[in-house]
Amino acid sequence: MADPRLTVYLDVCGADALVTADPGLVRMLSGHAPEIGFGPSPFQLPAVVVAARDAPVQLVCSADEAPAGDGVWSYEGFTTEPLDPLAGALAALRQAVAACGSAPARTLVDGASLPAGLMPAAAQAAEAPAAGLAALTAVKTAGEVEAVEGALRLCEAGHAAARAATREGIGELELWAAVAAAIEAAAGGRTTVMADLVTGPRTAEIGGPPGARRLAEGELVLVDLVPRRDGIWGDSCATWPLGEPPAAAVEMHAAAGRALEIGLAALRPGAVAGDVDRAVRAAVEEAGHSYPHHTGHGVGFRWHEEPRIVPGATTVLEPGMVIALEPGAYRDGLGVRVEVVSVVTAAGCRVLSRHPLGLAAAAAPEAAA
Amino acid sequence: MADPRLTVYLDVCGADALVTADPGLVRMLSGHAPEIGFGPSPFQLPAVVVAARDAPVQLVCSADEAPAGDGVWSYEGFTTEPLDPLAGALAALRQAVAACGSAPARTLVDGASLPAGLMPAAAQAAEAPAAGLAALTAVKTAGEVEAVEGALRLCEAGHAAARAATREGIGELELWAAVAAAIEAAAGGRTTVMADLVTGPRTAEIGGPPGARRLAEGELVLVDLVPRRDGIWGDSCATWPLGEPPAAAVEMHAAAGRALEIGLAALRPGAVAGDVDRAVRAAVEEAGHSYPHHTGHGVGFRWHEEPRIVPGATTVLEPGMVIALEPGAYRDGLGVRVEVVSVVTAAGCRVLSRHPLGLAAAAAPEAAA
Repeated sequence: MADPRLTVYLDVCGADALVTADPGLVRMLSGHAPEIGFGPSPFQLPAVVVAARDAPVQLVCSADEAPAGDGVWSYEGFTTEPLDPLAGALAALRQAVAACGSAPARTLVDGASLPAGLMPAAAQAAEAPAAGLAALTAVKTAGEVEAVEGALRLCEAGHAAARAATREGIGELELWAAVAAAIEAAAGGRTTVMADLVTGPRTAEIGGPPGARRLAEGELVLVDLVPRRDGIWGDSCATWPLGEPPAAAVEMHAAAGRALEIGLAALRPGAVAGDVDRAVRAAVEEAGHSYPHHTGHGVGFRWHEEPRIVPGATTVLEPGMVIALEPGAYRDGLGVRVEVVSVVTAAGCRVLSRHPLGLAAAAAPEAAA
Repeated sequence: MADPRLTVYLDVCGADALVTADPGLVRMLSGHAPEIGFGPSPFQLPAVVVAARDAPVQLVCSADEAPAGDGVWSYEGFTTEPLDPLAGALAALRQAVAACGSAPARTLVDGASLPAGLMPAAAQAAEAPAAGLAALTAVKTAGEVEAVEGALRLCEAGHAAARAATREGIGELELWAAVAAAIEAAAGGRTTVMADLVTGPRTAEIGGPPGARRLAEGELVLVDLVPRRDGIWGDSCATWPLGEPPAAAVEMHAAAGRALEIGLAALRPGAVAGDVDRAVRAAVEEAGHSYPHHTGHGVGFRWHEEPRIVPGATTVLEPGMVIALEPGAYRDGLGVRVEVVSVVTAAGCRVLSRHPLGLAAAAAPEAAA
């Protein structure tokens, strides 16, 4: 049976099938989570799904990553023979399209993700989707919400490790090493993690990767962790000081925290994304601060997807949408941000994140061991 | 001035321009090293180069990653405005193509990497390259060889850390955490690293990611580290025991080491890749062992590129080719592999790798601190 979200999307677009190589859509439509952490492989092309109305989803990928099951069309991967993964993928994609039955009258091709060399097999008369595919992944099933929660447990392991490692003189890269080790230990394997990890004046720059900088007493640590587990992303941010924070940071942190609470209170079915953005942004601005980024975003199949909580956004919230809210305040060499992920419910929202947001650097009990 | 390697490639293909989004080719032709460690971004498409005969290379990428300089065509990246990076990239690519002067008569499109949605801007009458683009990157400049050496220094930091951490009961993921921390400390920032890290009976499986397994006395540790630094890949493998290795492992390790020496002696201009493969493979087989994988491969712009050292390969070696050789032996719950990277010189080859290959687990002095 076709995913009802896909059916709605095809209806809106007046189309019969979608072909995409976006790893988030591949995960949503086929359940397969492609490895994405090392860039393109000379042995294979990105995994592709063919999702047609009234037909099971077909997956095209190399034998190296092919899951067991029906509807999987694979081609040779790692080999000592001459390499031509494009030819292999092209042939497998032709089989996948044929397996959908009669040729779809109108196939939408995800032009941002599908390699151009696969176009001859993807569609007779291909068209790029008019509407953004981002909306397709906005509402999650209960199982998908659980998968986001699984990724959030990795966030929490990372935040606990970072707080536990916060000490005079530690380098950002050393803090990061503690975070990465904790996340991979919790996941039981190597894990793709996007992260901001900045300290001291760098916190005013909103984000950035860990570098050589070393932490000094009274400075802030801002950590935003975005791990991917089984193809599903989590997200999380917190800011804390080493020792006694500057008074301005305490005030900024309180403002961001109040704004976050206002945002969580606004997450409910029928709310308009742009209104949520305005309410949260206004709360920070009333305190005399501001942030130059989004207030939040959907998360799960991608690390940033619909519903985007940005100025003027017209998306109406629905139960099952999974949303990260992340108000911040940045000024004069100081930056704070707090972020939690929630799922919209029938009555409002349920916060899925469990990492501490407070200014106390003390580690969570389970991380102190 | 066009890269002479590009000119030769276009001549062979009878073409006037190449459009590609392969990060290795982008690095080679433009010098820009795209981030590849987190999969596709909802805010941008992969960076694209337009490399035309008799015109400077043009780079198309989002403003978030755009380097300073001429010939860079960027579009909006991270934003709170509505997202349409495909439209942005398409418009920028049109400008890049126009900047090459009169429309090229025949443009080759790298169909394995270019997103299909960019085809309308890439070429009027697009054709996928007939020949493999892998050969384009086989011969390195002196500066590119130095960049590979830079990546190999990261390999060495990782191997030193792994040997230093080798002890009874340590988990593979803990060994990996030590490796990753050492590599990122040496690089001064987050680093993409592909890796095999297996212990005990898992070594017979040739490779695989680190997992929950814990190391016991007398077991082997097999570590193959493939880091990317400034867009250039290094490669390296070594195998060592905790404590006293089984006699069979000592013998297998000696066979692999002898085969590696034979391979290094065979690397010289005019040698045929398939002959190198046969000589190395035969040396292992004469000792009663075998390996089911390639003997080696080019490395640098990709982690596996021409010249591939595989059975029957007809590529003739040339000075400037950078080659990893990695003979191994696998049987009965034991696996060993040794790998070093060399550059072919006028007279033979020069080994670029410095990590220890020996069976002694003792850490290098600089890692013991």
